[in-house]
Amino acid sequence: MNILYVYAHPEPRSFNGALKDTAMVTLGKLGHTVKVSNLYAVRWKAVLDTQDFRMRQDPYQFNPALEQIHGIQTGSLSPDILEEIERVAWADLIIFQFPLWWSSMPAILKGWFDRVFVQGFVVHLEKGQVYERGLLKGKKAMVVVTTGATREMYSPGGVHGDIRNHLSLITHNIFEFVGMTPLPSFIVFGAADMTRDEGSLQLNRYRAVLEKL
Amino acid sequence: MNILYVYAHPEPRSFNGALKDTAMVTLGKLGHTVKVSNLYAVRWKAVLDTQDFRMRQDPYQFNPALEQIHGIQTGSLSPDILEEIERVAWADLIIFQFPLWWSSMPAILKGWFDRVFVQGFVVHLEKGQVYERGLLKGKKAMVVVTTGATREMYSPGGVHGDIRNHLSLITHNIFEFVGMTPLPSFIVFGAADMTRDEGSLQLNRYRAVLEKL
Repeated sequence: MNILYVYAHPEPRSFNGALKDTAMVTLGKLGHTVKVSNLYAVRWKAVLDTQDFRMRQDPYQFNPALEQIHGIQTGSLSPDILEEIERVAWADLIIFQFPLWWSSMPAILKGWFDRVFVQGFVVHLEKGQVYERGLLKGKKAMVVVTTGATREMYSPGGVHGDIRNHLSLITHNIFEFVGMTPLPSFIVFGAADMTRDEGSLQLNRYRAVLEKL
Repeated sequence: MNILYVYAHPEPRSFNGALKDTAMVTLGKLGHTVKVSNLYAVRWKAVLDTQDFRMRQDPYQFNPALEQIHGIQTGSLSPDILEEIERVAWADLIIFQFPLWWSSMPAILKGWFDRVFVQGFVVHLEKGQVYERGLLKGKKAMVVVTTGATREMYSPGGVHGDIRNHLSLITHNIFEFVGMTPLPSFIVFGAADMTRDEGSLQLNRYRAVLEKL
């Protein structure tokens, strides 16, 4: 399979770094072709703004959605966005790995979706190309996430609410919305307080999941 | 009241710009003191990274949560963060206005939470200072949001799911988590397709809500 691995953690020496390295080795051994978008390493520009569009449809009033459609039609999106779009188009599976910050993804990854998942490429609202007719239909996508809080806190009756509910903003409102099929999310709870042994167990568990892709 | 208005839209000539201007005039007339954090206008740095910390606790391995606690204790967070922290501390009410992108906030606003809501200032996990004991207790907070999709799509049985559920990641998992009391969210559905008259009605509705604060 062609796998795009979108990774958003600032510290290579972290448990997230270990998860990512585990994935690289495991996916490589299995014979997959892997491309990595290491957002912190490439200093990914997180903010969607006018600079994303090299040829504006409307230079007077900036409407992000309209400029995205125009930008994809004319090939005038900025080069960093076009490169990611090519990778997404190439991939059979996209894995998004990140730490849960404020029950959601870090800004640098949110900015990847804001900028790369442009209308006209992933969906087309006016043509009704969403969900079953989403333009990324046929691709799979997976969330790999670490949390500071415990499994109990993120359980259906827990103080933070059910993490599956929170992640559905990604798995349903992004993945399924653009036509991708979500694989079960891989979640490591309480990552900040793990012992080395617990960490090793989680890495083994991740390896086993990747081997069954 | 002291009101901090955190605003995240790139285009002043947009409906979001009109909502913000309506708020400025209305809140001013009512005698409130208002400070605005116009994130696009100040080119807010969205990405939490090592540059946020002028004096690292651990220069070898970057742990964002630990560095934030250390940074707030030593006053060594970067100046743009410290300025926002002072504004939050000053405010009785914080209003967050943004367009809903991917069922969530734009990256530039997510990065405001990632960087400004530092542990040791808004919560302290080890001391159990969260929710009822959150460090921002006594303050109020409000979401003001525009959506591209219709009210029906964001209803409990709609294709995108209940928007109240999505916004609870902000109103519960952020506002309530840090001890703030959420006010009812102000939502404008289908903002992209409104006529001028519909827009005026929504601005009047917003004015009426602000007058009752």
